[in-house]
Amino acid sequence: MRIALDAMGGDYAPATTVEGAVEALRENSDLSVILVGDEEEISSELSKKNCRGLQISVKHASQTVEMAEAPLTALRRKKDSSLRVAIDLIKADNADAMVSAGNSGVVMATALHVLGKIQGIERPAIAAVMPTLKDRFILIDAGANVDCKPVHLYQFAIMGEAYARNIFNIENPRIGLLGIGEEDAKGNELTKEAIKLLRNSKINFIGNVEGQDIFAGEADVVVCDGFVGNIALKISEGLAETIAKMLKREISERAGGRIGYLFFRGALKNFKRKTDYSEYGGAPLLGISKPCIISHGRSTSKAIKNAIKLAANFHSKGVLDVISKEFNQGMSRREEVAVKE
Amino acid sequence: MRIALDAMGGDYAPATTVEGAVEALRENSDLSVILVGDEEEISSELSKKNCRGLQISVKHASQTVEMAEAPLTALRRKKDSSLRVAIDLIKADNADAMVSAGNSGVVMATALHVLGKIQGIERPAIAAVMPTLKDRFILIDAGANVDCKPVHLYQFAIMGEAYARNIFNIENPRIGLLGIGEEDAKGNELTKEAIKLLRNSKINFIGNVEGQDIFAGEADVVVCDGFVGNIALKISEGLAETIAKMLKREISERAGGRIGYLFFRGALKNFKRKTDYSEYGGAPLLGISKPCIISHGRSTSKAIKNAIKLAANFHSKGVLDVISKEFNQGMSRREEVAVKE
Repeated sequence: MRIALDAMGGDYAPATTVEGAVEALRENSDLSVILVGDEEEISSELSKKNCRGLQISVKHASQTVEMAEAPLTALRRKKDSSLRVAIDLIKADNADAMVSAGNSGVVMATALHVLGKIQGIERPAIAAVMPTLKDRFILIDAGANVDCKPVHLYQFAIMGEAYARNIFNIENPRIGLLGIGEEDAKGNELTKEAIKLLRNSKINFIGNVEGQDIFAGEADVVVCDGFVGNIALKISEGLAETIAKMLKREISERAGGRIGYLFFRGALKNFKRKTDYSEYGGAPLLGISKPCIISHGRSTSKAIKNAIKLAANFHSKGVLDVISKEFNQGMSRREEVAVKE
Repeated sequence: MRIALDAMGGDYAPATTVEGAVEALRENSDLSVILVGDEEEISSELSKKNCRGLQISVKHASQTVEMAEAPLTALRRKKDSSLRVAIDLIKADNADAMVSAGNSGVVMATALHVLGKIQGIERPAIAAVMPTLKDRFILIDAGANVDCKPVHLYQFAIMGEAYARNIFNIENPRIGLLGIGEEDAKGNELTKEAIKLLRNSKINFIGNVEGQDIFAGEADVVVCDGFVGNIALKISEGLAETIAKMLKREISERAGGRIGYLFFRGALKNFKRKTDYSEYGGAPLLGISKPCIISHGRSTSKAIKNAIKLAANFHSKGVLDVISKEFNQGMSRREEVAVKE
């Protein structure tokens, strides 16, 4: 399986991307990775590693997309960016899947432009994984679409359900709508309309869900627009990191803190692992015709490694084919929704 | 100072409300509390307490607002609800401030209808307090207005700033807009317009802020619409509770867990105190002409006690007069905004 990696994407690239690719390949001999970006910089990073026996190659790209760059500007002016070239590799069937920790708006716009959408899908969405007390849930959309219509949320639910069923092996995923009260009548204009569509669908829709519910593990898939989803994601990350720091400080400030810290290092480590985004590595762009995985801008090499593994798993399980079938077999369902709009 | 307490509001009322009132009065002899609601139920709870020397009284109200009730329905049909009667007490100058842990949408609608807004303010907003690594920040709007216009967010910023300056004694509060990227160009339609207004204002506006930033304590006031704010608030609460449970489990599952738990009880308790909403008690409805404090639906007696204390502090510091002056002296600033809309 061939993964194209945007080696220049992310705050600590290319050091972390090269390191992550090497780690992924060491753990999985079936993989090959194409590092896309500035050849000189990438080669310099690669020269520090032992790559013997690894299926790793470099594809030069002369440009880099900046984190602050507007999607349409990047699309127009950066036709030789590491991101664009990585996506072009899938288009030309020289790669099976793509990973980027770069500007997620630009990843989305470029993937949409070059690879296109699965038939029937209006807006592709980012499906991120978040931890719960029991296990985890899928948050969709985690940041691709900032201003949504009710039918978009409906489609996110259908795609999220297929992802949960096929990648996480959940038989009948419980789908919730992220809201501000359990009752259907509570919400904003968008969610109050979306909930009507979801109530009429055949998925296992459990209604509005709130912060308490989702971390208690009451839903497998949590649906929202990308603005709300991105805020939810980043608040969770920020708070989890802050709590870990607070506890560390609390412990070290106490009498016997040093002994106590040693005592609890394991528990803290395990806790950190459960709440650490880098464990999940990345989030697929559901609805794009080929597997594209977006990774966190602050991705560490571990996050990149896990994103590469997710890309491979996503491709080998054929999740996009499942979604495509879902939308084409489920025509009547979608038409029913379109009529109601 | 006379506080009217909606004794029937909240999931565990009237037991928690009566208990909270008694605790607040024991700690502050300058206060008097009027418990509003079903006289029989309240008296039954009061009979379990030692109220000697406390300035506590009961005002009967025959109805109770349900948590799922729509604001307009409640406003029309529940004219003798505990909430309505409590608010009427302020209107008639028989109380200085009001506290309710009931349906926040109904509290807002009733306060708006009975007490009205401060001149110049379009939408009153809920200002909640949330903990950070260093201290705390004020989240406005935490749930009053689900569909906002840019000028509403601008006004929330002005009110939040006055609240931060006067209640938390912050000299030049840093105001951030809750967003999905640091750049001004990142956001949804609402925030991209709002940021232009905020950039043109005289407040200490620091731009878009994200989850990482806010819990690191980079802003004193975080502005957003009420849908996003309520989700942010509940996700933070849900996650903090979940993390505390995860850690407890991690610790107890380990060898020596029991000893470890005893060792860390203090640290965990302190951590819980810092992340526990009940410490802050409640959130004022900024923009209403009289002090109204909304408390969490799941309020414990401690949360009610702290909400009563906040109501007293809010009233004695004359925060609403400050906001009113801000909006009337700052006329030119507001007009400038209105023209730009």
